[in-house]
Amino acid sequence: MSLNTQVKIILVETTSPGNIGSALRAMKTMNFSKLCLVNPKHFPSDEVTALAANATDLIEKVEVVKTIDEALEDQQLVIATSSRERKVPWPNEALNIASPKIIDAATKKNKVAIMFGREDRGLTNDELQRCNLHVHIPANKDYPVLNLAMSVQVVCYQLFMDMHLQTIKENSGTWDVPTASSNHVNRLIEHFIDIAEQVEVFNKGNPRQIGARIKRLFTRIGLDEMEVNFMRGFLSAIDKNLNKK
Amino acid sequence: MSLNTQVKIILVETTSPGNIGSALRAMKTMNFSKLCLVNPKHFPSDEVTALAANATDLIEKVEVVKTIDEALEDQQLVIATSSRERKVPWPNEALNIASPKIIDAATKKNKVAIMFGREDRGLTNDELQRCNLHVHIPANKDYPVLNLAMSVQVVCYQLFMDMHLQTIKENSGTWDVPTASSNHVNRLIEHFIDIAEQVEVFNKGNPRQIGARIKRLFTRIGLDEMEVNFMRGFLSAIDKNLNKK
Repeated sequence: MSLNTQVKIILVETTSPGNIGSALRAMKTMNFSKLCLVNPKHFPSDEVTALAANATDLIEKVEVVKTIDEALEDQQLVIATSSRERKVPWPNEALNIASPKIIDAATKKNKVAIMFGREDRGLTNDELQRCNLHVHIPANKDYPVLNLAMSVQVVCYQLFMDMHLQTIKENSGTWDVPTASSNHVNRLIEHFIDIAEQVEVFNKGNPRQIGARIKRLFTRIGLDEMEVNFMRGFLSAIDKNLNKK
Repeated sequence: MSLNTQVKIILVETTSPGNIGSALRAMKTMNFSKLCLVNPKHFPSDEVTALAANATDLIEKVEVVKTIDEALEDQQLVIATSSRERKVPWPNEALNIASPKIIDAATKKNKVAIMFGREDRGLTNDELQRCNLHVHIPANKDYPVLNLAMSVQVVCYQLFMDMHLQTIKENSGTWDVPTASSNHVNRLIEHFIDIAEQVEVFNKGNPRQIGARIKRLFTRIGLDEMEVNFMRGFLSAIDKNLNKK
């Protein structure tokens, strides 16, 4: 399933073309491509293009409309991003809590719109009341004011991440060499202790439990086979040198 | 516990002062305050101040150094942000997977540094090999290139969120009126069906199961007491008018 076709980012009356460009780049890094601008002050603009960086391909696809009604035509789940408290509280959730629900709606082929307000004063009450859910980005309560494009980046990041959680886990921490077996590591530890005894830095009666500390060190690293082999070779070479004399 | 005093953001050889200002604003929105600049091209600068917005108080606290060695003095866990694959793979984790470990280290009073590289070419191999862990932001594999300040925003957001998970859950979805009791809602439904019968839009033998649909509608909303009372008043007024004639 591609969030791409189901989720539309809407920027309402954006003043700075730089923010539009930065928002496009932010969207592309998280694999979103549908941007709708409601009554933007400057668009198109060279500044949009400059800040979009390698997301300029998305500029031609941008939908530009005059009203919220046009922007929300056919949308089935409408989300507002907002940090302000309202007199009449609306369903309001933190981004990380709302995110799985947004993905669930998109997965069920609902058209989802996520609205971002003006740089200086966000969305109006009327605009907010068009929305099914208000979402806020968890932030410093004394200064929760993220730049507009930054908010787009964080929202898209959270959605991307929740969407690809399984793939992310699988791709986290790839390694080029297989992990050494426990016995293999254990023989390395014995070898190391043997050398440590020979050079008299190790004493079995040691009250500081050097033996346990060495074992902890070598088991904790998560050594790979090549590292164990290298260390064994290193210790063997030392061994040979020590016994030459 | 304050992450503030334990986590330091390091920007290495940043070219654009705008990125430094945006990074400071991003940090402040997520309650981070320690920024260290290694050999920045322009600092201080009016552009830093302009883009820092209401985070200008952090500018005077910025640490400026010439070398990575100075930046990492006393640091106990050093994280590099990087999206590139290396010839010799380093421990590398997705941000959301690394984040709880970073918080855990900070909670245990370790000094944690998170390094961000140059705008155009990131961190050098030497710099990367100074780090305990490489972290990448999960992103579109065809274009994972976040702007520098955006990366700072996302990393700080993820840390802030994981740090305050419980509080975020508690503060999500506050409401001004208590939720209506199940019986209260049930009497509203009976009242509604009674009126629907009177105006002949409801027929108990209806094959489209209107009764179940009405019940599902009113139970699903999660009505509050004020809403139930208002609806009851509304139905009573209709009732009165119907029986006047």
